[in-house]
Amino acid sequence: MSAAPVFAQSIISPEVHPDGRVTFRLKAPEAKEVQLHCQTVKGAVMQKDDQGIWSFTTDPLEPDIYAYSFNVDGLHVIDPSNPLIKYNLRNIDSQVHVPGPKSLPWEINDVPHGVLHQHFYKSAVASDERNFVVYTPPGYDPTARKRYPVLYLLHGSSDDSTAWSSVGLANVILDNLIARGQAKSMIVVMPLGYGASDIVKSGGDPKDRWVRNLDSFGETLLNEVMPQVDKSYKIKNGRDACAIAGLSMGGAESLVVGLNHLDRFAWIGGFSSGGFSTNLASQFPTLNEKTDRQFRLLWIACGKDDFLNRQNHDLIDLFKSKGVHPTWTESPGEHSFIVWRRYLAAFAPLLFQGVK
Amino acid sequence: MSAAPVFAQSIISPEVHPDGRVTFRLKAPEAKEVQLHCQTVKGAVMQKDDQGIWSFTTDPLEPDIYAYSFNVDGLHVIDPSNPLIKYNLRNIDSQVHVPGPKSLPWEINDVPHGVLHQHFYKSAVASDERNFVVYTPPGYDPTARKRYPVLYLLHGSSDDSTAWSSVGLANVILDNLIARGQAKSMIVVMPLGYGASDIVKSGGDPKDRWVRNLDSFGETLLNEVMPQVDKSYKIKNGRDACAIAGLSMGGAESLVVGLNHLDRFAWIGGFSSGGFSTNLASQFPTLNEKTDRQFRLLWIACGKDDFLNRQNHDLIDLFKSKGVHPTWTESPGEHSFIVWRRYLAAFAPLLFQGVK
Repeated sequence: MSAAPVFAQSIISPEVHPDGRVTFRLKAPEAKEVQLHCQTVKGAVMQKDDQGIWSFTTDPLEPDIYAYSFNVDGLHVIDPSNPLIKYNLRNIDSQVHVPGPKSLPWEINDVPHGVLHQHFYKSAVASDERNFVVYTPPGYDPTARKRYPVLYLLHGSSDDSTAWSSVGLANVILDNLIARGQAKSMIVVMPLGYGASDIVKSGGDPKDRWVRNLDSFGETLLNEVMPQVDKSYKIKNGRDACAIAGLSMGGAESLVVGLNHLDRFAWIGGFSSGGFSTNLASQFPTLNEKTDRQFRLLWIACGKDDFLNRQNHDLIDLFKSKGVHPTWTESPGEHSFIVWRRYLAAFAPLLFQGVK
Repeated sequence: MSAAPVFAQSIISPEVHPDGRVTFRLKAPEAKEVQLHCQTVKGAVMQKDDQGIWSFTTDPLEPDIYAYSFNVDGLHVIDPSNPLIKYNLRNIDSQVHVPGPKSLPWEINDVPHGVLHQHFYKSAVASDERNFVVYTPPGYDPTARKRYPVLYLLHGSSDDSTAWSSVGLANVILDNLIARGQAKSMIVVMPLGYGASDIVKSGGDPKDRWVRNLDSFGETLLNEVMPQVDKSYKIKNGRDACAIAGLSMGGAESLVVGLNHLDRFAWIGGFSSGGFSTNLASQFPTLNEKTDRQFRLLWIACGKDDFLNRQNHDLIDLFKSKGVHPTWTESPGEHSFIVWRRYLAAFAPLLFQGVK
């Protein structure tokens, strides 16, 4: 009996060189122009050889995980030679990992690993079948008495519930932080972040959809996901053991849901937050000078080159005008997981400190 | 604060019409020729409109889930308008779901759902970081006394450990079968099916790699995955509660590992099996007329139009020549998940019957 087919793979792409340069290749003999779109190399025109293979080599890149795609005569194309993708509901890209020191938070280390659990349920609020992902830390034992604090971690617009693990590498980051004693052992719940099932579909008025999304998302989280988590996992009771944070749309959701439910969440984070209603103040009706004493942490961060940077400054100004004082971090970077992996690595160690 | 960006999505693709016809669309104004490659519609030439949008509408398709891609002047392209992909390490495709009656095994029903768990570990055998996926059935409670039989379910060449759940919809199929009382409640373990980490990479002699793969895969399963599963889940002891099955390469692995370890597995399935060594008989040295009494089920199936059909007949002939009599099913269809979802739905109900 002959061997099953082994796919011929003549093109090596991406090729990461020892010095951090990366060569991207695509076979497209008929194309007129092929560009590489990479997070640090935008719109680089690739060169075609006599085999019809287009290529481009970058300067040395800092160790990180970069999203990229090819633009073939106007068509967005992922790299057919590369199985590492950045999955997304609207725009799938390829990814290249430029490896770095094992001390980088997203590098896989030889440490105990947590487990990812995917739960499926029918949402009455959103009228759809959906899922949520749960990270249990190394050593988690459902039959033991030990209970854990929980972080609800929300993805951005056009992501799904797997984004924080598959692209954000939240499980790897937590494994590393916990192994180094830099973060408390915690459960992380990554729900689907849409309150309305049509939010990622086309048509309709975007602003209307965003407002409906934010309102309903809170319902799916508080009334549907949290009860299932409380029932299925060894969760510590009380707001002091409960955190909520998210990126972009998930940042707005975390701030709106968290600050309006301080009886449920004492630790709140917004990473590059966006997607509020036009009347920002109306979404935070209860903020006042007593709010500072009600949360343990209100952590807000945004990249200097993020298109939402100005809006995050507006948010900080609003909070301060109400007598609320977040911990504010402005970092280098844009609106991407390059920034958000670092935010999670900076935020998680702050959580649940001082809580028995 | 303005709304976060909502992506413009002018192209609707695929569009499934009420009668089962499907329209595929791709915007590629500069392309000379665009073909649709779909499992039932091969190499259909698409037509371009004056907006540069290529389209093709099929005849009515039977309810199913079909893989497809576009060929744009020789370049393999997934559908940029469609988030439903068929992930694979060598060849990512798009998928279209033509919905059918809720009685179809892969349709999501309003029934209790199991949970998918993803475990990460360092393999000493394969010298890599890898994972395995575990399905626990509805009602599974790690703190209760009830123990479950286990099916080890193996993917094919170029798939990864998520293929049986994300493409094969094994969790949906099991949820449905269990809800209807057609299959016993069971745990399903879906490991990474490569014994050698370079099996999916390029270079080297394919046959050599396949043989090393098969030998080492058994070690990863028996010595690494199974002990972790036994420790982490409520698994019933003994061979009568332990099954192994797989598709294509995973079918070969199931037959070789299963039939050479009848002390561990009493239920064995090979779906469209391939990837044996050239000397087929050498991989089954212990088969004899007593073997039939040692397994509870040896279930072998292959599609009539599968390129491995001839080899599966050779396999059956070999087994019969040794006095071993598998349950042999020859079905319509090719080498694809359209066939394998049906095989799982036919195979799972046979498992663990008569076992207390």
